[in-house]
Amino acid sequence: MTESLFYQLALAGVRGLTPYQPGKPIEELEREYGVRGAVKLASNENPLGPSPLAMEAASKILGESARYPDGNGFALKAALSQHLGVSADQITLGNGSSDLLEFVARVLVSPEHEVVYSQYCFALYPLLTQVLGARGQAVPAKNFGHDLEAMAKVVNERTRLVYIANPNNPTGTWSRSDELEAFLAAMPEHVLVVLDEAYYDYVDEAQYPHSLAWLNRYPNLMVTRTFSKAYGLAGLRIGYGVSHRDLADLMNRVRPPFNVNSLALAAATAAVQDQGHLQRSREANRAGMAQLTAAFKALNLEYIPSVSNFVTVDVGQPGEKVYEALLGQGVIVRPMAGYGLPGHLRVTVGQEAENARFIQALEAILKEPR
Amino acid sequence: MTESLFYQLALAGVRGLTPYQPGKPIEELEREYGVRGAVKLASNENPLGPSPLAMEAASKILGESARYPDGNGFALKAALSQHLGVSADQITLGNGSSDLLEFVARVLVSPEHEVVYSQYCFALYPLLTQVLGARGQAVPAKNFGHDLEAMAKVVNERTRLVYIANPNNPTGTWSRSDELEAFLAAMPEHVLVVLDEAYYDYVDEAQYPHSLAWLNRYPNLMVTRTFSKAYGLAGLRIGYGVSHRDLADLMNRVRPPFNVNSLALAAATAAVQDQGHLQRSREANRAGMAQLTAAFKALNLEYIPSVSNFVTVDVGQPGEKVYEALLGQGVIVRPMAGYGLPGHLRVTVGQEAENARFIQALEAILKEPR
Repeated sequence: MTESLFYQLALAGVRGLTPYQPGKPIEELEREYGVRGAVKLASNENPLGPSPLAMEAASKILGESARYPDGNGFALKAALSQHLGVSADQITLGNGSSDLLEFVARVLVSPEHEVVYSQYCFALYPLLTQVLGARGQAVPAKNFGHDLEAMAKVVNERTRLVYIANPNNPTGTWSRSDELEAFLAAMPEHVLVVLDEAYYDYVDEAQYPHSLAWLNRYPNLMVTRTFSKAYGLAGLRIGYGVSHRDLADLMNRVRPPFNVNSLALAAATAAVQDQGHLQRSREANRAGMAQLTAAFKALNLEYIPSVSNFVTVDVGQPGEKVYEALLGQGVIVRPMAGYGLPGHLRVTVGQEAENARFIQALEAILKEPR
Repeated sequence: MTESLFYQLALAGVRGLTPYQPGKPIEELEREYGVRGAVKLASNENPLGPSPLAMEAASKILGESARYPDGNGFALKAALSQHLGVSADQITLGNGSSDLLEFVARVLVSPEHEVVYSQYCFALYPLLTQVLGARGQAVPAKNFGHDLEAMAKVVNERTRLVYIANPNNPTGTWSRSDELEAFLAAMPEHVLVVLDEAYYDYVDEAQYPHSLAWLNRYPNLMVTRTFSKAYGLAGLRIGYGVSHRDLADLMNRVRPPFNVNSLALAAATAAVQDQGHLQRSREANRAGMAQLTAAFKALNLEYIPSVSNFVTVDVGQPGEKVYEALLGQGVIVRPMAGYGLPGHLRVTVGQEAENARFIQALEAILKEPR
């Protein structure tokens, strides 16, 4: 197998793929730019950190790390089942909720199928579609958010999956309960709707849907949530999907038997109980969001109103350039050119001092002669 | 989507699949059988536990769990690169080495292809083949181990992958360096050979291959190793593959961006440095293996000679029945009927007292009138 042969032998979907670009880790920035005390507002992480109860639970079982995890996640499923009011056999655990986004595609999608998602959607949706060799349908956005009516219209006999993020990443937009239920009602039974609620915990809107209540009426719905955002457990990798139990059974067949590690299981089980930490995280986010948007207004920058823990702002010049300049100042945000928003940056709501540091650096950069 | 429709819509490979059966967790046995202080010798875990240095490293960064892991695994790849004498871009990190077994299949194998493995092989090889809808070729074993000559003969134009475990799980057999190199030399360039060395660290045989030294000569070789066995980090989920850098590049495209959690990265980086713990684990294993095999001889039971940290024994009656009886005594081993060895049990080498408890229980069960 010569060098070029690897690329010739790789499946077409894999060969053509550009891997997902994660937010730059702090250590990487410090290593590459020789800066110290960098601030990362690039991956929508919880600036308050994880729940102390979750850390205590993980710490307690650290010494048992030579044992394989419970591949069935008995204790966490029991805790989630009670917390969410669903049956444990409807729950599938993932190494982050991105695992679920992938499992469902690997159960239902082959190269002759289509997958529908929105313009400005989470980067993994088109990647997961492409790697399976299926056809992706990116439906033009409406006010940077999902145009659910237009999405319903492109669904056809070959469609197997629709990915909808609510709130949406990277735009922070959201869909109302009535819109989403109309969309579900319009779906033919061969189409599964994946409602990605990674940022669920931050939303504070009366019209935001109680999606789990729909599961009995719409069996072709799967809801995914994560412990990586408001719960502050991104480093441990844990998320879950709630679906019809038959779909959970099928996803368990493509799920690696030990996809979730023991510490993540223990930490998440404890985190579900620590609703106080969640509440504090929500409040800190509300204050930080007000701080950031006030600064954008003062700088005359347009931003996309967000119900999440990040906000995407139009910097009025090439975003990649401002991103690089911010790196030089030790501030990591996320450039949006890869998402089709070349003049925007996505900024995570950080702690007050982190937000202030970002605002100060941004202001200085924007004042420079262009 | 009605209940049965999920199964109709699922891809054929997924629909027909029976999920992997892991070893029963201790908590599950205690919950189901109402026993206390159970002993688990079912998953080839290190009875000495993890390296204290690894646990210290993980513990130190527990508080940073709200941050995403370094998706590129910079520090661990640097440590492994130095330890193994390979380049960092040849290394791909996995959530256990099973991740690598899957990634390589997802890069190279589609339904028109064939995958070759041995009878009595690790259960994931046929599962990973089936889920992709490809054809698996299980080549009859020779003395419970790989018949490499026969395996080379079934390779054809449609073959993309050969899985070889050395030592083999669940039989503990191994292949010599000269046999394996002859096999590699006979492979056409469109066939990738995956050498699964999960139990590498336990082998103490002069003829056992230095497989990494082959990588320059045989670019169609990938070697996988794990931190789950001798390194005692099964609960954290971490393993790796070493291959041609182009294959690593392709595997990184199907790899989820944050497949390895932060604590696993930190613990493994420290574990690589703690060769003392590894040495103690090897010595304890040697003593425990002698204890188990002496007992089998005393009980007149035939076992498959093993160079690993487990041994598979013929109990002379239905293994499932003896397995169940052992569960009732609070001892978990692994029944082998699913591997085509209905009269065998696979037993992990435990601590001296655990081995003694298993031997005593087994002796009592075998003495009962049948």
